[in-house]
Amino acid sequence: MATLKDVARESGLTVSTVSRILNNRGYISDNARQKVADAMEELNYRPNEVARSLHRKSTNMIGLIVPHIRHPYFAEMISNLENQAYKKGYRILLCNSQRSEREQEFIDMCTGNQVAGIILCSGTLETKKFGRVNIPVITMERFRDNGTASVECDNRQGGELAAEKLISCGCHNLLQVGNIANQPMPADTRAEGFRSVCEREQANFVEVSVQEAQYYNMRYSEILEDALQKYSQTDGIFASSDVIAAQALQACRKLHISVPDQMKIIGFDDMQIATITTPQLTTIHQPVKEMAEIAVSLLHDAVEGKLIPRRTVLPVHLVERETT
Amino acid sequence: MATLKDVARESGLTVSTVSRILNNRGYISDNARQKVADAMEELNYRPNEVARSLHRKSTNMIGLIVPHIRHPYFAEMISNLENQAYKKGYRILLCNSQRSEREQEFIDMCTGNQVAGIILCSGTLETKKFGRVNIPVITMERFRDNGTASVECDNRQGGELAAEKLISCGCHNLLQVGNIANQPMPADTRAEGFRSVCEREQANFVEVSVQEAQYYNMRYSEILEDALQKYSQTDGIFASSDVIAAQALQACRKLHISVPDQMKIIGFDDMQIATITTPQLTTIHQPVKEMAEIAVSLLHDAVEGKLIPRRTVLPVHLVERETT
Repeated sequence: MATLKDVARESGLTVSTVSRILNNRGYISDNARQKVADAMEELNYRPNEVARSLHRKSTNMIGLIVPHIRHPYFAEMISNLENQAYKKGYRILLCNSQRSEREQEFIDMCTGNQVAGIILCSGTLETKKFGRVNIPVITMERFRDNGTASVECDNRQGGELAAEKLISCGCHNLLQVGNIANQPMPADTRAEGFRSVCEREQANFVEVSVQEAQYYNMRYSEILEDALQKYSQTDGIFASSDVIAAQALQACRKLHISVPDQMKIIGFDDMQIATITTPQLTTIHQPVKEMAEIAVSLLHDAVEGKLIPRRTVLPVHLVERETT
Repeated sequence: MATLKDVARESGLTVSTVSRILNNRGYISDNARQKVADAMEELNYRPNEVARSLHRKSTNMIGLIVPHIRHPYFAEMISNLENQAYKKGYRILLCNSQRSEREQEFIDMCTGNQVAGIILCSGTLETKKFGRVNIPVITMERFRDNGTASVECDNRQGGELAAEKLISCGCHNLLQVGNIANQPMPADTRAEGFRSVCEREQANFVEVSVQEAQYYNMRYSEILEDALQKYSQTDGIFASSDVIAAQALQACRKLHISVPDQMKIIGFDDMQIATITTPQLTTIHQPVKEMAEIAVSLLHDAVEGKLIPRRTVLPVHLVERETT
């Protein structure tokens, strides 16, 4: 492989001039810059980023930890984060944490590989494990006492909007489904908002949690069919993701419950899946693109030592389609 | 941050002994290993992977290039690749290539960051640009003359199975849709297989290409509605992804064409989306998990200097659901 010395020889310049050009330091003539560019092209020389990182004490990588890659919400979030990171000159080191052990291992790996910062979309990890991480940590959808900053959508507002909509459509017996039993997650706050409106409006409601395995396999049909049989008076469902709402539709179909006549359904996220079901899903729109944009900007500012907001909460809104 | 010296001091061992332990070289007593582990824990010491990489001349990272992250097929593929990579001790550096310029930039970045190898799921790049990459390059779903190895599913067989199924269901006027005009992609081979059976069985068929923008936005409704109006005799559709097939279902609904009575539809991929539509999609199953497993194994073997197959083609099969 070609070295810096080879580039210097080929371009007829000194090693220190070439180094200055590559690092963009001091005055450089266009002529010299062109010579180096030509020599690099000719020799297929690529600066050794690993060596440069050692010098800088950090790399241009962002460690991205997600609990789930194939879930449409996370796929969309990863895509947006990657795109924003690219625009700011960062690369994404991707980790599917799944279980908390892998999350800890990945954090160790990130710091070992000297990433510029971490974006954490996963929440299974105990907070104390972050105590010793001395790089910026931006949490998505969870606020952490010892994270650098969090970017969230207003999950409580989302739950409130869903309850208000179902009640205004004439539903009397509501079912909220989607949080994982004994595991803190954004769906809990959605459920809280939903509950508060139900209580205020004195609407009947039940809450159904899912199992961790169902979440990771994205298979909810069994639990939904059971719930609809157990709570047979149900006439309105609020699911904490579009994936669950789509499967609630299927459960209704199987049990010969007509949507939206006999049952109204509202999802959460507003991913493409919401427009692919029959009927199409009414859902709560999360501003994923804007959340990703803000997360990468905050991380970048934190890397540069700027003061950044501890908590950023974006609004959501209801998108009405055919299930209400 | 703690250094190797600090660990040596804390554990009461020499720097060279600690280094031997961290690199697993030579005889090491359990006692010494325990002392170092304790000291590392106490000091929160993490080996500097960047420095170690410089020594080894490569990192434990795999550069993964995909054209699309939010597309269900690629989200599923990324998830499987990440999982397999993790099992073999690799990390994923993720790049959404989208346009070919970014792909070239990412390849340069991968070699600059000394990744162990590249897995390329994207095909827009001209082959010659790979000529000078001196690390293993595993291509998914495309065979390249100068790649190290490719892992594919039998796309031709998939197209054949779809045509045979539609014809055996009594369809006479077939429509194949999904390849991007003027851009080589796996859908082309699916179309070839489909065409060959149509010709052999003397079935009428038309082929409809999509635009690049439609592919990246995953919005096909307009082109599908136009095609169904233009070719109004159509009674069977083969779409080269489940995402397209799901939208073909919607187009039929909009045009009051009943599926499967008046129209049969077959998708490709067998992602979760195929089970979420109403009716559920008949589709061609791609063995994504096995493809990912083989790709990472091949890359690992290539890194270790083993001889690996140039081309690995896995079989597909038809999964019959409710659209045929």
